[in-house]
Amino acid sequence: MAIRYTSSDCAALLEELRARSPLVQSITNAVVTNFTANVLLAVGASPAMVDIPEEAGQFASVASGVLINLGTPGQEQQTAMVEAVQAANAAGTPWVLDPVAVGSLTVRTELAHQLVTQRPHIIRGNASEIMALAGVGAGGRGVDSTEDPLSALEAAQHLAGSSGSAVAVSGAVDLLVGHGGQMIGVANGHALLTRVTGGGCALGAVMAAFASLTDDALIAATAATGVYTIAAEQAAEQAYGPGSFAVGFLDSLARIGPDDVLKTLDLRPVDAPGHAR
Amino acid sequence: MAIRYTSSDCAALLEELRARSPLVQSITNAVVTNFTANVLLAVGASPAMVDIPEEAGQFASVASGVLINLGTPGQEQQTAMVEAVQAANAAGTPWVLDPVAVGSLTVRTELAHQLVTQRPHIIRGNASEIMALAGVGAGGRGVDSTEDPLSALEAAQHLAGSSGSAVAVSGAVDLLVGHGGQMIGVANGHALLTRVTGGGCALGAVMAAFASLTDDALIAATAATGVYTIAAEQAAEQAYGPGSFAVGFLDSLARIGPDDVLKTLDLRPVDAPGHAR
Amino acid sequence: MAIRYTSSDCAALLEELRARSPLVQSITNAVVTNFTANVLLAVGASPAMVDIPEEAGQFASVASGVLINLGTPGQEQQTAMVEAVQAANAAGTPWVLDPVAVGSLTVRTELAHQLVTQRPHIIRGNASEIMALAGVGAGGRGVDSTEDPLSALEAAQHLAGSSGSAVAVSGAVDLLVGHGGQMIGVANGHALLTRVTGGGCALGAVMAAFASLTDDALIAATAATGVYTIAAEQAAEQAYGPGSFAVGFLDSLARIGPDDVLKTLDLRPVDAPGHAR
Repeated sequence: MAIRYTSSDCAALLEELRARSPLVQSITNAVVTNFTANVLLAVGASPAMVDIPEEAGQFASVASGVLINLGTPGQEQQTAMVEAVQAANAAGTPWVLDPVAVGSLTVRTELAHQLVTQRPHIIRGNASEIMALAGVGAGGRGVDSTEDPLSALEAAQHLAGSSGSAVAVSGAVDLLVGHGGQMIGVANGHALLTRVTGGGCALGAVMAAFASLTDDALIAATAATGVYTIAAEQAAEQAYGPGSFAVGFLDSLARIGPDDVLKTLDLRPVDAPGHAR
Repeated sequence: MAIRYTSSDCAALLEELRARSPLVQSITNAVVTNFTANVLLAVGASPAMVDIPEEAGQFASVASGVLINLGTPGQEQQTAMVEAVQAANAAGTPWVLDPVAVGSLTVRTELAHQLVTQRPHIIRGNASEIMALAGVGAGGRGVDSTEDPLSALEAAQHLAGSSGSAVAVSGAVDLLVGHGGQMIGVANGHALLTRVTGGGCALGAVMAAFASLTDDALIAATAATGVYTIAAEQAAEQAYGPGSFAVGFLDSLARIGPDDVLKTLDLRPVDAPGHAR
Repeated sequence: MAIRYTSSDCAALLEELRARSPLVQSITNAVVTNFTANVLLAVGASPAMVDIPEEAGQFASVASGVLINLGTPGQEQQTAMVEAVQAANAAGTPWVLDPVAVGSLTVRTELAHQLVTQRPHIIRGNASEIMALAGVGAGGRGVDSTEDPLSALEAAQHLAGSSGSAVAVSGAVDLLVGHGGQMIGVANGHALLTRVTGGGCALGAVMAAFASLTDDALIAATAATGVYTIAAEQAAEQAYGPGSFAVGFLDSLARIGPDDVLKTLDLRPVDAPGHAR
């Protein structure tokens, strides 16, 4: 079933984010911590990466939102993640799960399945990851996805239904699915985002920031995706390659305003498996 | 009591740094390691992050200066930090303590209090962190500080007196306090520095580089702050946002010379609690 | 003995890399993970940093190539490295060893000597590191090398012969030595590459990408060095300092084509210890 959010719903959330500057705890992989923190700062949130046992739970209970990204889940991070999720749930703090490269890698896959039962507000991944987490397919190769988001539509709906989470599937058209099966697409973005490490991972952190502003996890995921991918479009216009794109992307995230969202956001209804109109 | 360092004191130290290229061991948080190393390289120092037990002490005894930053103190890093501090003290290597987000997070707060007793040459933080470490206030939210440096003036003086360290408090006007209570302010800088992750953390590493050049920890902290914040001003002039600012900041750090310090450094006497003239 | 690879050998490998997009597992130090991943993405490879025990071996058996970089070898990474090397060797996956700062630091030095016996396809380091690994000299100070690559020529030949690996020594003219003693130099590059952290480390990852394309480890190391250093030259032309250089370097890596290699690659015969013609 298609859900008809509007650009102004998303623009209003961006305005709200700038006013509140939510504090986002990111327990994320070693490759993208720096980029993730800079993305959060640029968009107007306040980043903190508190990822050691004992402190992770302490911080999650005061954070506005939490990101759990499974990219490099060392022993201490695993403990910290479980602790942070428990504290976040106890405190009512929304959290986002990014099941990076789940499928054939056993440690993260087991952890991802365990965390899904704790009801993340949003689960974000590429098509391969979402399918693997839903029990369909064997996962992609590393962070790559060879699959179109729409190929993961049924998996995403199944996962959203069983977990109670909104599910976001990255791709040329991003697919967002609510826990009740509602669907919407975001058709903004640029391929250069796939040439910068953390291009997907940092979006998970931005979703955690937006999720702190509303009880509707699906609109939070949609607005985060919209703001993020519009900034990517703006940056791509000035870029000579992935290096200058990443720099310009941070500049754009800092400059993008509600008006840009109103003018540029390209929401697409999605209403049946396999069909985006 | 105000101390009257001059711009030429600071310019001379920059010249010295370029001539000696001090080797700075940075045991720092996962978010800012890359930026910190690039800042050190840009300013003319030589970075090394040796942060595992057994090696940390070996390296601290040959390093020119050491930074201990408590941003993400995992188990191995905690051991490495204690070891590095002992070796640094035994070898007479100056070291800097950055007590990131101390206050309510228990692991780092306990570690910070333990390390303060080992007499760091310089303690660097924002107002919330310095107040928390001095036992005043409960700390800020993560790396943010909602406090003006001058609000931490008494706490900084108390901490400097009890620890024997110079204390540096970041803010719009940076406040530097000597272990004997001497005070000075640096009024250079730009707000974009707070929009780049590691903007404060990397300054701690630069302080360790300058501390290797002189026995006067307060002038080292002052010169480091001056060079760093002047480079920020230069970079801000060309920046479109935090992404291009961070890039330009590294370029400026590499190009800034003693002449820029002589012309631009804005030192301010500070002589009574609450008063900067 | 000099080996006479041509620019077109190297250009053909770059074309091959773009066609195949090899999946490179990088178990590398905390300072350079982000830059390494971005370098791999820029040049056209697919990065993955799977560096925890149990998963590291699982991934190495499906990766196209593996980098083992000893810059910050924490306990879990040490286990993961040994596991990944065993799995890579079992699967016939080529792997590269970067013995960062070996010499006086005991943990990494012992590990490096152990890994050398597992026959890396390529060993990459600066002159100090290669000499230390070959048992000549005490190593440099951290990642710095004060030595010219040619001063490490005999050490590199000895190490190549004893390990069965190709040995790459970074410097103004990069020196490449085959396991049979064949030698070649690459005279491209720019000093700004030494002012960006990971400038050497990320080259190891690119070598792992090229090593996945051919059974000849020496031509892989040579082509990787050529592509990498030509991109550095291009980036240096537009750079104002190390910040803009790093950004432009990623842009150049993404844009460099076989034609650039044909036109610009400066291969130098090297045929006797101490003599590059």
